[in-house]
Amino acid sequence: SVNPDLASERLTASFSVQRLTAVLDGGAERTRVRRAVVAAIESDPVFSRENQYFQSQNERYEAAVRKAVHVRKKMQELGWSEDGPESIYVYRALSGDVAFLLHRVFMRSISVLGSDRQVAKWIPRATEYQLIGSYAQTELGHGTYLQGLETTAVFDTSTQEFILNTPTISAMKWWPGDMGRSATHTVVFAQLYIHGKCYGVHPFIVQIRSLRDHSLCPGVTAGDIGPKMNFEHIDNGYLMLQNVRIPREDMLNKFCEVQPDGTYVRRGSQKINYFTMTSVRISLIADEVILPLMKACTIAIRYSVVRRQSKLKPGEEEAKILDYQTQQEKLLPQLAAAYAFHFINNYLHELFNRGYKEIQGRNFDSLPELHAFSSGFKAMVTQYCTSGVEICLRACGGHGYSLLSGLPSLYTKILASCIYEGENTILLLQTARFLIKCFTAASAGQPVPPSVTYLAAMKPRRCPAKDKLDFLCPDIYTEAYQHAAIRLLSSTAAKLQDLIQSGIEKHDAWNQCTVQLVQAAKAHCHYITVKNFVETVEKLENKAGIRKIMKHLCDLFALHGIFSNAGVFLHDGYISGAQMDMVTASYLDLLGVIRKDAVPLVDAFDFTDESLNSALGSYNGQVYRRLYEWAQKSPTNKQISPAYERYLKPLLHNKLSKL
Amino acid sequence: SVNPDLASERLTASFSVQRLTAVLDGGAERTRVRRAVVAAIESDPVFSRENQYFQSQNERYEAAVRKAVHVRKKMQELGWSEDGPESIYVYRALSGDVAFLLHRVFMRSISVLGSDRQVAKWIPRATEYQLIGSYAQTELGHGTYLQGLETTAVFDTSTQEFILNTPTISAMKWWPGDMGRSATHTVVFAQLYIHGKCYGVHPFIVQIRSLRDHSLCPGVTAGDIGPKMNFEHIDNGYLMLQNVRIPREDMLNKFCEVQPDGTYVRRGSQKINYFTMTSVRISLIADEVILPLMKACTIAIRYSVVRRQSKLKPGEEEAKILDYQTQQEKLLPQLAAAYAFHFINNYLHELFNRGYKEIQGRNFDSLPELHAFSSGFKAMVTQYCTSGVEICLRACGGHGYSLLSGLPSLYTKILASCIYEGENTILLLQTARFLIKCFTAASAGQPVPPSVTYLAAMKPRRCPAKDKLDFLCPDIYTEAYQHAAIRLLSSTAAKLQDLIQSGIEKHDAWNQCTVQLVQAAKAHCHYITVKNFVETVEKLENKAGIRKIMKHLCDLFALHGIFSNAGVFLHDGYISGAQMDMVTASYLDLLGVIRKDAVPLVDAFDFTDESLNSALGSYNGQVYRRLYEWAQKSPTNKQISPAYERYLKPLLHNKLSKL
Repeated sequence: SVNPDLASERLTASFSVQRLTAVLDGGAERTRVRRAVVAAIESDPVFSRENQYFQSQNERYEAAVRKAVHVRKKMQELGWSEDGPESIYVYRALSGDVAFLLHRVFMRSISVLGSDRQVAKWIPRATEYQLIGSYAQTELGHGTYLQGLETTAVFDTSTQEFILNTPTISAMKWWPGDMGRSATHTVVFAQLYIHGKCYGVHPFIVQIRSLRDHSLCPGVTAGDIGPKMNFEHIDNGYLMLQNVRIPREDMLNKFCEVQPDGTYVRRGSQKINYFTMTSVRISLIADEVILPLMKACTIAIRYSVVRRQSKLKPGEEEAKILDYQTQQEKLLPQLAAAYAFHFINNYLHELFNRGYKEIQGRNFDSLPELHAFSSGFKAMVTQYCTSGVEICLRACGGHGYSLLSGLPSLYTKILASCIYEGENTILLLQTARFLIKCFTAASAGQPVPPSVTYLAAMKPRRCPAKDKLDFLCPDIYTEAYQHAAIRLLSSTAAKLQDLIQSGIEKHDAWNQCTVQLVQAAKAHCHYITVKNFVETVEKLENKAGIRKIMKHLCDLFALHGIFSNAGVFLHDGYISGAQMDMVTASYLDLLGVIRKDAVPLVDAFDFTDESLNSALGSYNGQVYRRLYEWAQKSPTNKQISPAYERYLKPLLHNKLSKL
Repeated sequence: SVNPDLASERLTASFSVQRLTAVLDGGAERTRVRRAVVAAIESDPVFSRENQYFQSQNERYEAAVRKAVHVRKKMQELGWSEDGPESIYVYRALSGDVAFLLHRVFMRSISVLGSDRQVAKWIPRATEYQLIGSYAQTELGHGTYLQGLETTAVFDTSTQEFILNTPTISAMKWWPGDMGRSATHTVVFAQLYIHGKCYGVHPFIVQIRSLRDHSLCPGVTAGDIGPKMNFEHIDNGYLMLQNVRIPREDMLNKFCEVQPDGTYVRRGSQKINYFTMTSVRISLIADEVILPLMKACTIAIRYSVVRRQSKLKPGEEEAKILDYQTQQEKLLPQLAAAYAFHFINNYLHELFNRGYKEIQGRNFDSLPELHAFSSGFKAMVTQYCTSGVEICLRACGGHGYSLLSGLPSLYTKILASCIYEGENTILLLQTARFLIKCFTAASAGQPVPPSVTYLAAMKPRRCPAKDKLDFLCPDIYTEAYQHAAIRLLSSTAAKLQDLIQSGIEKHDAWNQCTVQLVQAAKAHCHYITVKNFVETVEKLENKAGIRKIMKHLCDLFALHGIFSNAGVFLHDGYISGAQMDMVTASYLDLLGVIRKDAVPLVDAFDFTDESLNSALGSYNGQVYRRLYEWAQKSPTNKQISPAYERYLKPLLHNKLSKL
């Protein structure tokens, strides 16, 4: 039975939840496929997540391996191919709780960086799981700065082998997933030396464990790096190599080769390497970043209409906490952001697919833009969503802090997305570098990519809004974002130039501008996100209330950003103090409007209870019963603690005997 | 051996670290006592935290009980009394990793709310651990709104007993520490009913477990609420009561009593109850909130001079990451905040002690101010420090995400402080209510407490700063904070009045202003913190460079606040856009200045390696070696996973056999 407070929220939806779900999925047919996959996975007990919050790191790892093996079998049985429409939903249905993800990266890197012969040799074996691969790039001492990797691969002409070594402790490979306990092979990135000369970092295929008994190969030291904030199910590992010899053929050599006599030959472009990283960054945004925020919103919003606490008016019954303005102000902007990022993710995928087509046609022009966009949006979206999940967690008070709410694990997992696949600050500075180049070019009248032509656009000096309703006009707020982005970028560009002209060395000057460059890059991404949300709303079907509610969310996302970053808009007077009061008024009004549809808006994300795995967030809202039932299953209740016999009993009885 | 990059940082300190430590401790003698306590605790293997990051919830609980029992014995052996100077450092030396903290709250509540007879009966037994107490206030359905508690205590005149019941699932006690598995007794808060009439919430002493064999008493259901984001060592519990009868004498009855015939008598003032909560809130700020931020800063800053990554200039060696402006901008404001909050904590303790003296003289005038201050500062400091610890964690990249860095557990623990002892938003609204009252009074020329007289102060309409150096003048920035606090409060007061005058019901109007009231309360606390930092610096000894470096930190704290909340200061033009550029310039300059002393400034916190328990933050900076050594101890490396035999071997061999 559905909690009546939650049920009543669903009666008054201003739009069709089903239709909105289809919009989010990209069509009703895809909703059908997704649901079929989810149902198939969740009905299989092997994939159960029931006791997940009680499991140790060892148990989680074992479960992830079990699931990885079983899901392969299941996909074969059900006839879902790796490239089929179902496969993209499998990982989602497993909530990422599965091993051998790095095996895919292993395969991808061979496909991209390996010669045809290497692809022919390794990919079928990997596909058939005759080996388990990993990807050993990051070292203890180096993450973002790949040129600084210390692992060495010295070519020995006499034996036609590379000799791999970990010369220092900081050169140890550290973090690669699937490597600590599972992998038999890995792609190792190492500095290539031939006849004493260093040729920079190159990828090598190295076997690390026996295929017969899984023991470590000679010269190999490897293990698990121990507990982390999340990802208990993944065996992130360390790896040291001592004089490990591999044949010359096992350097991935599509783009360069070491010939038998030690001659080093480079062929083709290595630029395509960026494209792999770009593709990884874009591909993770949906499942690893936006989905967790959607889940957190679902949990927190459902709980906030079930939870009643204190009274809005004396004499009335206790109020649903979502009826407090402060609670709305915590949660509803996160909800709007989840929608905004869902749409910007579609935009990024389109951009990427367009770029990919060009690249297949040997046109690499869009690479810098794609790299800048994937970097900046990865950073912006992960940062925003991580903060959003944390807000949802805190907004659920004490119960949000229980693992059983599902929120802590969403938070600890999404937090990692700010660090992996490029640390966010580094990424934003790469975006900033691209923007500064484009700004300089645009200012000089040179052509720039379409996404940044606005940098040279004429703009009004003052926001024309006259009253609070004007701020519900997308042109008004989009212009404000555009203006802020241009101002931050142009003023930082000017500072950079001033510093250089004053005689400060170029790299020092850049360093002295980085705090502001990061701000500028964020402002650019924020602007594009708002603009894209506006354009998406315009294109939406004007049926069943969909466009109307999306317009409200778009307004809320935009105005929340202005309200929360008021200084950026007030700085040069583009928005005046009086106008900021209008922004605030419209923003607070919108909270009340969207409040009414808050539950249908999270229902539209269409998460099953199993995928939420939350005592607070289930569809029927039986919050307290579920918390109690789940707590009883905890191992803390399943054993009589030895602490009683050992410590409590002597303490208590010692004193009693004194009486 | 100390890592040379870290060692070099200590050679150039602009001040005496030892002297600063003494300033922070409140005198060299206290430093001596603190170090003696820490040394005694840390040299005892029972208190070792060596394997903490690898332990299960059950193991952590058992260790905490063991430590609690052992620390009692140890204190007796060493002659440290509960009231002695050493005792305050014992908890700190244990890093809070100890059971029976709620036993103290149990005792405190009896001392405060119990009659002399009750105190005489229970306190000696509790002191001697003839029982283990807990404190059962919070229920599944009610946390902040105590009037809504649902547990009932019905007086039965025929037997002279109270009959306690948990009438609904949401009435179950939920969260009390030490209750899930340890406590034999607890203070239960329940709605008192006499002859069918409800007299509101009252405290009752209830035995829940047998003193003989620790089994649950008849009518009692209790257990552990399961896993949480942290506090694995505490058995937070649930409790249901079914017709549990306790004698009439066991209602805590200093302030009210039920006579044998059921007559209800109230005596004295219950206001003192607020004072207990006030005292708890103030007492937790140092150890639970500021100390974790200091630890996080120590870890992140030491790591940031050991970690070298990428190059500031081509051709040079890789740079310490603390030399990047963006890294300074992440960490150094948190360092300044740790100092700012250390000093505001001293201020709050003085305020509290002054108030306590007055109250002992039966003067309750300062209670509202104390309540408002303890609420607002608890909220502001916990929020700021939680965010600070998270920034430190993220600033350490991947290694910060490993539990072995110590940062994840600091974060997950401090996060709880935003929720317990009053949820922060609720607390800030209580502060706001007090401020609105004072503002109204001050505007009408009525007297208000000294801390808020500024609300009626005359103020300049524009910041007089002419260049960036002016913003290093404490008067300039303190005035700016004062102005912002007054503006936010007065504009919200005006909005509130406008709404009420427009006919909106008072409680609705209040709700519609709460987002802005929270902002105003924060601005007030921020202003007082800056003002107090400035005044503290003025009073500091002008020796050994102490005052100078503290002045820099004070400036940084203040300017970071303006830089990060620019909108608040720009809104009415008090600070112009051009002046904000000066703020930014001075702020960024200060980062470079404090950078030089960053390591000595965290060394002065004087944490031992044991108390940091961090592979990244140790005094000698042997980061990578420690990470590797600690990881090897992980249980993930101490067993051959059954996953190999069960899943990997069949997978790999199945395919090999096909060949």
